[in-house]
Amino acid sequence: MGAIRFELIKTCKQSGARLGKLYTPHGEIQTPIFMPVGTQATVKSMTPQELKEINSQIILSNTYHLYMRPGHKIVEKAGGLHKFMNWDRPILTDSGGFQVFSLGPLRKITEEGVEFRSHLDGSKHFISPEKAIEIQNSLGADIIMAFDECAPYPADRDYVKNSLERTTRWAKRCKDAHKNSDRQALFGIVQGGMYKDLREQSAKEIMDIGFPGYAIGGLSVGEPKELMYEVLDYTTPLLPKDKPRYLMGVGSPDDLLEGVIRGVDMFDCVLPTRIARNGTAMTSQGKVVVRNAQYAEDFTPLDPECDCYTCKNYTRAYIRHLIKANEILGARLITYHNLYFLLKLMENVRNAIKEDRLLDYKNEFFRKYGYTL
Amino acid sequence: MGAIRFELIKTCKQSGARLGKLYTPHGEIQTPIFMPVGTQATVKSMTPQELKEINSQIILSNTYHLYMRPGHKIVEKAGGLHKFMNWDRPILTDSGGFQVFSLGPLRKITEEGVEFRSHLDGSKHFISPEKAIEIQNSLGADIIMAFDECAPYPADRDYVKNSLERTTRWAKRCKDAHKNSDRQALFGIVQGGMYKDLREQSAKEIMDIGFPGYAIGGLSVGEPKELMYEVLDYTTPLLPKDKPRYLMGVGSPDDLLEGVIRGVDMFDCVLPTRIARNGTAMTSQGKVVVRNAQYAEDFTPLDPECDCYTCKNYTRAYIRHLIKANEILGARLITYHNLYFLLKLMENVRNAIKEDRLLDYKNEFFRKYGYTL
Repeated sequence: MGAIRFELIKTCKQSGARLGKLYTPHGEIQTPIFMPVGTQATVKSMTPQELKEINSQIILSNTYHLYMRPGHKIVEKAGGLHKFMNWDRPILTDSGGFQVFSLGPLRKITEEGVEFRSHLDGSKHFISPEKAIEIQNSLGADIIMAFDECAPYPADRDYVKNSLERTTRWAKRCKDAHKNSDRQALFGIVQGGMYKDLREQSAKEIMDIGFPGYAIGGLSVGEPKELMYEVLDYTTPLLPKDKPRYLMGVGSPDDLLEGVIRGVDMFDCVLPTRIARNGTAMTSQGKVVVRNAQYAEDFTPLDPECDCYTCKNYTRAYIRHLIKANEILGARLITYHNLYFLLKLMENVRNAIKEDRLLDYKNEFFRKYGYTL
Repeated sequence: MGAIRFELIKTCKQSGARLGKLYTPHGEIQTPIFMPVGTQATVKSMTPQELKEINSQIILSNTYHLYMRPGHKIVEKAGGLHKFMNWDRPILTDSGGFQVFSLGPLRKITEEGVEFRSHLDGSKHFISPEKAIEIQNSLGADIIMAFDECAPYPADRDYVKNSLERTTRWAKRCKDAHKNSDRQALFGIVQGGMYKDLREQSAKEIMDIGFPGYAIGGLSVGEPKELMYEVLDYTTPLLPKDKPRYLMGVGSPDDLLEGVIRGVDMFDCVLPTRIARNGTAMTSQGKVVVRNAQYAEDFTPLDPECDCYTCKNYTRAYIRHLIKANEILGARLITYHNLYFLLKLMENVRNAIKEDRLLDYKNEFFRKYGYTL
């Protein structure tokens, strides 16, 4: 008996998108879903209460950051990540692989694992597949991720092939090391860069090991959007229909819609929270860079079509003032709105799938949002 | 008919402290009261909704900062400060004098007013008593303050005497310039430094002009606490019993209690919000510097006797982690608690006055809080 169960409710007749339910130890998730990112055991500027207000079903947290600070042993002593951060709904933790590989010259990859220096104090550390699972077992998220290598873009075929084959060997080691498969579901990650045959090889190898869910890694790493959609076009059909599919690191409205249409169930991205802190809102009319001078005397809401707390109570002029003055409330109000906007988008997407009209919804959304592919 | 009305409900038989009600255009205030500070049209890190949750009856905002950014004309166009910041309860604005005088070498005082350079961009500005009132009339707070000079500590007698006499002349000009006395109450400010006869002179001159409320300025400027209490001892009895008394810039628990006992009705201070952002909580057991290493594995609340949102849901270990990691939520959670703590303290003070036992309450509070005068 595994930690999670996935139920494919239906497939949109118009688009092929999937509507599903994911049952986890901390409750059900309606898919497709966007997962807000809480890197350091907090979705930046938000309380768990507010995350619930805007209907966040699941959040993501970062293993590398929590390992570094406060340390996974402290989180374990607190009773696990849910208790530590006061969030009783599902959590997914990444493996730390992506962050460690991003350290560039500070890290050295061997078959055994990755040696690296802390971005905080320069101290030396070593994370192997076994260690990544040990840390995630301590944190106790409902869904945990295999320790993989995410190849950069562009990367030549040989590099990507070697990298995906090591990712396969590491995935096997992760599965062997995982101690809590009754209460934490370990997802495998398909790599293979922008090469169709390598995606096929990776998908086959990872599925041969067998996992309760599959992620597509190595996308949204700098390649053109069209290329990402093309890779998705041939990768998602390789994956089993009865397991959830997670596209890592993707979260712009257009990518979410295109991903769902290609059969993806789960997404995460720092985009909505990061641009919020810089003073940019996602709205039904496209991006609004509210720190710009043109909004100094604009007494309308961030998004006139939105009914979130921010849009019901505050003007662009006020939020611009807060952002210019470096006030925390500015980051809070835009973060709240941006997450509400994306979660509402995904709710609309689920309703459109239910009614077999996701392509219509997409066209309608983009007409206002100003997106042209 | 003035903008406000003050009702002295009773005087504590044990301590002499005053219980009152202040009626304003945006509602009633139970006194004595602590006013959270929202310098730039936001109480740092808090929403107005949260300020209501913790029973903030009135907040203070800073005229100098709002004049500089976003500019009082923009606030006026927004419909006034209440609308601009989405706060429908009473607001008090200071005159900007204190901030301008704090600019040190960047300002020049003449009888006409103060010339200074902006702390933001170095641009040149001039604020006169008339200008300070014009700005405050634009902002539209329920209570506004006369433009005064707050003498530094220490300062010699001649300096303080000249300064208080100019403050008197400026107070007269402020009253003459004030346009909205039907909906904004202008308070006069008593200066006079640490000199008893000068306090008497200032109180007499300011009261001769006549205001609906009186502030005591020039305290909490670096003098020993005992000296501040001594000045209060002889200054508050000079003020009319039927008008509210406001001690500016005071907000530590001990100073609030000592101030109330000496007949003060209103207080404000950035202390609780400022120390919160540095990781320090005010608790029933005294200050808790939660960023200290000793709290890394402390899974108890900031204040075990507190029932605020922060203390009901989060541990010292988690909040320490947030503060160490520079997470906005850390500042939020401690700010929320510290303001709750002070507002609850004032509620307890009002109840103790009602029951003629404020000295008992003070002793009980300090026994736990660890305060010794």
